[in-house]
Amino acid sequence: MALLQRRLADFAAARGWEPYHTPKNLAAALSVEASELVEIFQWLTPEQSARVMEAPESAHRVTDEVADVLAYLLQFCEVLGIDVLDALAAKIERNELRFPVPGTSTPNRHSSE
Amino acid sequence: MALLQRRLADFAAARGWEPYHTPKNLAAALSVEASELVEIFQWLTPEQSARVMEAPESAHRVTDEVADVLAYLLQFCEVLGIDVLDALAAKIERNELRFPVPGTSTPNRHSSE
Amino acid sequence: MALLQRRLADFAAARGWEPYHTPKNLAAALSVEASELVEIFQWLTPEQSARVMEAPESAHRVTDEVADVLAYLLQFCEVLGIDVLDALAAKIERNELRFPVPGTSTPNRHSSE
Amino acid sequence: MALLQRRLADFAAARGWEPYHTPKNLAAALSVEASELVEIFQWLTPEQSARVMEAPESAHRVTDEVADVLAYLLQFCEVLGIDVLDALAAKIERNELRFPVPGTSTPNRHSSE
Repeated sequence: MALLQRRLADFAAARGWEPYHTPKNLAAALSVEASELVEIFQWLTPEQSARVMEAPESAHRVTDEVADVLAYLLQFCEVLGIDVLDALAAKIERNELRFPVPGTSTPNRHSSE
Repeated sequence: MALLQRRLADFAAARGWEPYHTPKNLAAALSVEASELVEIFQWLTPEQSARVMEAPESAHRVTDEVADVLAYLLQFCEVLGIDVLDALAAKIERNELRFPVPGTSTPNRHSSE
Repeated sequence: MALLQRRLADFAAARGWEPYHTPKNLAAALSVEASELVEIFQWLTPEQSARVMEAPESAHRVTDEVADVLAYLLQFCEVLGIDVLDALAAKIERNELRFPVPGTSTPNRHSSE
Repeated sequence: MALLQRRLADFAAARGWEPYHTPKNLAAALSVEASELVEIFQWLTPEQSARVMEAPESAHRVTDEVADVLAYLLQFCEVLGIDVLDALAAKIERNELRFPVPGTSTPNRHSSE
């Protein structure tokens, strides 16, 4: 992923796109791509949405939008110096405390035992 | 990243959240998180947006939203069996053909020389 | 609606918010509010989504987000001088030609008879 | 506006689109259209964004997206029985209390005087 992030940065630099790549603009572009993914699903039932990879045309479209979302996410993180994998690991740890598995001993319960 | 993707899948399974995690719902959740990132920047000038990591509070908020976007992106790809790094690598290659670097020999120019 | 549009413009002017209300920022704010509406529905089944006005709390939340979307839409149109009702009337007319009612004589069919 | 809302409802009914028009789907469609508006502005400077109605092509595109946003907003409100103008009037009143004009006597100040 670090390699892809580098290729994206080089790609933008080679084309002189860096002045456009403010964090504000990249966040907007990310949300636009995420909405293009939503658009594919907007009139589908939950069941139809689960079969979207079966037709080559919609499979290609979904894969393409997913790539665009990751591309802008990595470029956003690049310009702000954020390590997105670190950010996600930290978030998962916070969520494991915030949403304990029902019916199991949780860190919170341990501390009160 | 594969490891984080696995932890996210286990996290959802342990909490019985899988029935909610249709591709349609995950795409919507992804776009909602992307918009929460946009919200941080919506009234900022381009210059202010470039300094968003300087204040600890906004830095934390940005990092948190970035993690949420990646979390839903990975969960979306997990339920549909998409390799998001492969998807991005393929997209970068297509874009290198589609947006040739100005001033260099491009495949198109070669063919017309 | 023209009256509400005026009140919104006066509201922003009285608070010195006009410099922030560029078309770009207002479009972003509109999309953020639309996503807050999506967020209410993101984990609901289609059936649950149809009953969202039955619980006072979710009814209030939906009504509030709908108001925010319209507020930013009107402010966006105000700063750009767009008459949104005219725009919608013109769009409906285009759509009536573009999506003819199945089983009726349509302008297209007339022209080929 | 009530008339346009009626035409939109009749339009959808005549085409058998009502089963697709769940509140969940209409909220998603609304957010997709709002993002299409954002897309027009995503790489523009604030200054460029203020001149978007000067070129006929971008003026048409903006007007078209604005119409789509209002169309889905009205259809969303129709299926849930929400009066969007009432909702906005109520919201403006709440906001006038919440964001008092700087330098004026406000309801809060009155109560503490």
